[in-house]
Amino acid sequence: MLNRAFRLRRRPEGALAEGDLELVEEEIGELAAGQALVRNQLLSLDPTNRIWMSDIRGYMPPVPIDAVMRGLGIGEVVESKRDDMPVGALVNGFVGWQEYCLVDDALLEAPLAVLPDPLPGPKPAFLGALGHTGVTAYLGVDFADVKEGETVVVSAACGAVGSVAGQLAKARGARAVGIAGGEEKCRHAVETLGFDACVDHKAGDWRAQLDAATPDGIDVDFENVGGPIMDHILMRLNIGARISLCGMIAEYNTYSHGSGGAGLQNIGQLIMQRATIQGFLVLDHAARFEEAIGYLAGLLGEGKLHYDETIVEGGLQAAPDALDQLFTGANMGKLLVRICAD
Amino acid sequence: MLNRAFRLRRRPEGALAEGDLELVEEEIGELAAGQALVRNQLLSLDPTNRIWMSDIRGYMPPVPIDAVMRGLGIGEVVESKRDDMPVGALVNGFVGWQEYCLVDDALLEAPLAVLPDPLPGPKPAFLGALGHTGVTAYLGVDFADVKEGETVVVSAACGAVGSVAGQLAKARGARAVGIAGGEEKCRHAVETLGFDACVDHKAGDWRAQLDAATPDGIDVDFENVGGPIMDHILMRLNIGARISLCGMIAEYNTYSHGSGGAGLQNIGQLIMQRATIQGFLVLDHAARFEEAIGYLAGLLGEGKLHYDETIVEGGLQAAPDALDQLFTGANMGKLLVRICAD
Repeated sequence: MLNRAFRLRRRPEGALAEGDLELVEEEIGELAAGQALVRNQLLSLDPTNRIWMSDIRGYMPPVPIDAVMRGLGIGEVVESKRDDMPVGALVNGFVGWQEYCLVDDALLEAPLAVLPDPLPGPKPAFLGALGHTGVTAYLGVDFADVKEGETVVVSAACGAVGSVAGQLAKARGARAVGIAGGEEKCRHAVETLGFDACVDHKAGDWRAQLDAATPDGIDVDFENVGGPIMDHILMRLNIGARISLCGMIAEYNTYSHGSGGAGLQNIGQLIMQRATIQGFLVLDHAARFEEAIGYLAGLLGEGKLHYDETIVEGGLQAAPDALDQLFTGANMGKLLVRICAD
Repeated sequence: MLNRAFRLRRRPEGALAEGDLELVEEEIGELAAGQALVRNQLLSLDPTNRIWMSDIRGYMPPVPIDAVMRGLGIGEVVESKRDDMPVGALVNGFVGWQEYCLVDDALLEAPLAVLPDPLPGPKPAFLGALGHTGVTAYLGVDFADVKEGETVVVSAACGAVGSVAGQLAKARGARAVGIAGGEEKCRHAVETLGFDACVDHKAGDWRAQLDAATPDGIDVDFENVGGPIMDHILMRLNIGARISLCGMIAEYNTYSHGSGGAGLQNIGQLIMQRATIQGFLVLDHAARFEEAIGYLAGLLGEGKLHYDETIVEGGLQAAPDALDQLFTGANMGKLLVRICAD
């Protein structure tokens, strides 16, 4: 049986380009004891994928050259020589950019999780609003201790994390101001996701829009982007403001050995406003996944949580081009690639 | 009777220059009920003085054009029509860059504090190690929750705040690594202040020095400087690192409406290392002054706290030139101007 996989052949300079990844076909051998074979169905594309491709000081080692590209996804066990993963089970975790994932405790970076059967929600949601991006939103809102009446700014407001973060801030009684690219997304953020306002960062007057949308200043910044937008947010922080630093996608394509981008000019405002920045990673907080997913599933069940998905069809080979959507902002909500039908 | 005072005539561009401040002589009238007259003895020079001169988004309003320059100091009550400030009492607070301070609750930005009599320590120390800079060091070390065995980096290690912060970190059992300008200061930091190592940021190889002095990475950064040094520190943070953001003196001369400097490139490391930055101001924590000063006075009494002072003689008129010492690094320890003898 053949597996098709993307192997990282060289580290991208800037955006991912032709030749950085190579699609290879490789024979899958017989399973050994303790192994299982997963047929990948859905691949999650996340901004952090780009970080993993660079040899920078990240939170995980960079994907080694010639290794299969790291990626989260959901697949189905199709062969098994292990009791904890029966054939037919759905699993979730680092399945990689490939059609089949060989489950072997000695080879995988992290164990895959077996999803409950029956699944208490739509499958793609377990890579989104009820998965790592939803939990990320939950944690960032919680770490910032968002309170009723506060103004919360969320960048990448129509993204997988930002869209949920805004709704969670609203659920706590805060004023939620989104930042998104383009009029369509801004309209969606307000009309569908329930943000009180949304700033179009592609408009020439985005700074004025942000000022107008935050007349009482900013108490919490759920930061997904970094760059000039974050720098402007810093100038509008209120005393005691909190920044949940979740991502800085504006920089991921220019990282090179740990630095890049134009640099933040206004960090000194953290002193003036006695403000804090807390960087965090969802992977550290496995102990809270159940609590978070329970809360998110509850909101979803009550019709109080909207989520969007952009599922790219075309199989595994569509993944490299699809990743770029995260950086151009072409996707709405959670970006996934369908590797194969259910 | 005549008062001499520095009034701010224009906002400095870059370093404070001739003509930004004007030394004026002004008649002091008869005291009204509720007023007292303080003869200023010692003026504290602090990096934040430069912030107050600029029309930026600071933590206090900028000094208005034509107003007397704001400054902390100690003086003696020489005339009084108020019961809480008898003639002969020493007072501490915002006395201004002037020879006499008219105490009037309706005019002063903040009430002056009457110092205890007899004074439980040397008078200049109440503007330094037992005053606002010592308390700042105490708070920053406490907020960062410095623990035994951790590596703590302190920039401006021979400054009024940094020198105390390093000793407090040592008192908690941490490894303290200073950063200071020049070989003499670095030697002083190690030999007299007790830092485990000190990096000379004026040396061409300061990055390599810092790397060598922090072989186990950095757990806490007591940050007084900002700029490229902070940016390099960000690249050496350990997981869960804390930055107590006390000052960013590298930027104060270039602030203009809130931004300036080259910008920090490596804030994204806060995500990678799940690190935090907490900006703070000593003025917010009056409720902890007694605790802090008690602790510092205890260390001092046990001979476990060394502090340095640079007292500039020459009277009030020496203040503007003396301020520049903070930015060139000419001073050792707390910088004061003696306005008049006791």
